[in-house]
Amino acid sequence: MRAEIIAVGTELLLGQIANTNAQFLSQKLAEIGVGVYFHTVVGDNTERLLQVIRLASGRSDLVIFTGGLGPTQDDLTKETLAGHVGIGLETNPEAMERIEKFFLQRGIVMTENNRKQALVLSGSHVFSNDFGMAPGMAIRHDSSTFVLLPGPPSELYPMVENYVMPYLNDLLPEKQVFHSHVLRFYGIGESALEEKLLDLIEKQDNPTIAPYAKEFEVTLRITARAATVEEGEALILPVEKEILSRVGQYMYGMGENSSLHDVLVSELKKRNETIACAESCTGGAIASLITSVPGSSQVFRGGVVCYTNEVKNQLLEVPDSILQTDGAVSEKTAQLLAEHVREKLGATYGISVTGVAGPDPSEGKPVGLVYVGIAAEGMPTVVKELRLAGRRHAIVGRAAKYALFYALQMQKER
Amino acid sequence: MRAEIIAVGTELLLGQIANTNAQFLSQKLAEIGVGVYFHTVVGDNTERLLQVIRLASGRSDLVIFTGGLGPTQDDLTKETLAGHVGIGLETNPEAMERIEKFFLQRGIVMTENNRKQALVLSGSHVFSNDFGMAPGMAIRHDSSTFVLLPGPPSELYPMVENYVMPYLNDLLPEKQVFHSHVLRFYGIGESALEEKLLDLIEKQDNPTIAPYAKEFEVTLRITARAATVEEGEALILPVEKEILSRVGQYMYGMGENSSLHDVLVSELKKRNETIACAESCTGGAIASLITSVPGSSQVFRGGVVCYTNEVKNQLLEVPDSILQTDGAVSEKTAQLLAEHVREKLGATYGISVTGVAGPDPSEGKPVGLVYVGIAAEGMPTVVKELRLAGRRHAIVGRAAKYALFYALQMQKER
Repeated sequence: MRAEIIAVGTELLLGQIANTNAQFLSQKLAEIGVGVYFHTVVGDNTERLLQVIRLASGRSDLVIFTGGLGPTQDDLTKETLAGHVGIGLETNPEAMERIEKFFLQRGIVMTENNRKQALVLSGSHVFSNDFGMAPGMAIRHDSSTFVLLPGPPSELYPMVENYVMPYLNDLLPEKQVFHSHVLRFYGIGESALEEKLLDLIEKQDNPTIAPYAKEFEVTLRITARAATVEEGEALILPVEKEILSRVGQYMYGMGENSSLHDVLVSELKKRNETIACAESCTGGAIASLITSVPGSSQVFRGGVVCYTNEVKNQLLEVPDSILQTDGAVSEKTAQLLAEHVREKLGATYGISVTGVAGPDPSEGKPVGLVYVGIAAEGMPTVVKELRLAGRRHAIVGRAAKYALFYALQMQKER
Repeated sequence: MRAEIIAVGTELLLGQIANTNAQFLSQKLAEIGVGVYFHTVVGDNTERLLQVIRLASGRSDLVIFTGGLGPTQDDLTKETLAGHVGIGLETNPEAMERIEKFFLQRGIVMTENNRKQALVLSGSHVFSNDFGMAPGMAIRHDSSTFVLLPGPPSELYPMVENYVMPYLNDLLPEKQVFHSHVLRFYGIGESALEEKLLDLIEKQDNPTIAPYAKEFEVTLRITARAATVEEGEALILPVEKEILSRVGQYMYGMGENSSLHDVLVSELKKRNETIACAESCTGGAIASLITSVPGSSQVFRGGVVCYTNEVKNQLLEVPDSILQTDGAVSEKTAQLLAEHVREKLGATYGISVTGVAGPDPSEGKPVGLVYVGIAAEGMPTVVKELRLAGRRHAIVGRAAKYALFYALQMQKER
């Protein structure tokens, strides 16, 4: 099946937003083995949109539109497609009801143009919009299937996950499932991971193996197509085993929504343990990551951002003599920060980071030199030395993730 | 002038990356008044790329390509365009020299395929690549101008800023400059700002007025086209004056790279003042924003992430009686946190945030209720109560920015 994606909206052509909807849809289509051949962005203009629709109908089996389903004069995707395929529009009662309810609940008078949002192409398959007003729809015409979806990501993403993907799966010639395992790695770069798995990646067919780098972590998605989930699982397992035999020491978790901080918080909850942190060069990044997880207050005691030597000394009792001889960026300081923040805040684990984030060296120490300390109740404290490359933002981001990764490692040993 | 942007790369069609290059180029073209009518993404495939080139040549005066200039077999933008326009490729000596030097400096043997990167269309205008190997180029053919640029943003952005924009400016029929003022606002939403300026925005022509929302802040760009910068400035000033008479109280700074934390750090430096923070619900977000500014160690003393009552009590001496009667999320707690963190860390200003980020209420207080405290040396402490909407991430982000905004306001009064 040949697919293409058409985003409608002048705001994209003005550069006010990036076309992340096309990226999201491309990922989803790749997962079910549908090839995407073109992305197009066109403005809110009937003539040019029609030109794009004609071209797409002639070359693609599946044409997915995003945007242009709203209430204003500018929103003209379904009206223009209706003209092209020669099918009229009709009000979808469920969508109308939802729109009326929306205004009723908020106590706002509904303006007449909102009714336009409940119009769908006659005879189309309607996708209900659980997070907004305009429904999505799909209609088959000649040899093409046209799918129309709302532009706001908060409405588009759940509609695609819940309704559009099952619909598209049914369209596929052979009934098959696409079953994935997502492995999460840290402490290894994307290119180093790829190099270690190059022969597997090059001969990949079923399952496919795709590495992605995201927010300083690396994710590997193994996807099998098969008649059933069980058959898919059977195809994945030997490949996964081979992968883990080569890079298993860097894997810390599985699944799409399992960043290092998610896994750490969930492991702490399971084990009824707590954590505290002392951050110098990461400046609050570790605390921010941990507290971004809902319910983290159960396990996170708190943290100290000890940006100056005085704070390291006064709040966390690192002796002045150590700060003078070893320096703030040193193994000894990292050790004491981790131990003292753990004790003072009464946590199971204390993690600390001290280093040089740049742009300039500090204490004669080079940009990128970072010490991470992990103290745990009843265990000797571990300090790791890192030499990180990149700019300030990258050094901070990666140092924070390393600290979480080491905390997870320590937890396994405890 | 009618322009369109063509991004070449299968990784875009697989959803591995978003087409942020098209967004960037669209913004740059909008700044000089060039209208962008289409974005297209096509894979690394000669036949489909040729199809896209033919279509673009027929409908646009300016066609900008990104990607496909690299050393591998997959990179075929210039080869395919050369075929279309009937012009050969030749080695650009400066580019070749740069490539050879690149390998020499790193002590790596250059593989033969790297020579391909120095090839340019014969007779084209060459843009040197200061941050990579493949040069960009522009060539006029029939009535169209084709511009070919590298895909990696780290190479593309500086090439566009330094070489491509001046080249395009020269192409414009009338010699004119585009001169902008960027105003930064906080404490007002994008739609509320737009509403207050609606009549100005609707009748805008020269200068244009464009509001953008970004990372919980709102930016307004006023852009004039004129023969000289002075004339542009003269067009902008009366409009800016009118805007500030309506929403001036929300403006905190000017310029593209002046987020609230940038302005706050730079003002603190100027005045030789320091700051410290006590964060409960923002969980380190304020410290992270401040320390993201290079050189912030001059003004940032440090912070305490007081996620639990024990930490509020032990490290920042909020009496248990207050935590029991008023609660952790209260005006009084915010006040004491701000005052005590300022005193303990010896800073000019102490800022505190305590609130309910959600997803669940806390102490019977609703999600979104947030108190921000600002203590300053020699001034009475101010506490602001906020009712923020949105999900956890948005509440944290906006509460952190409000705290910075109030700190800037307090600084003005001091």
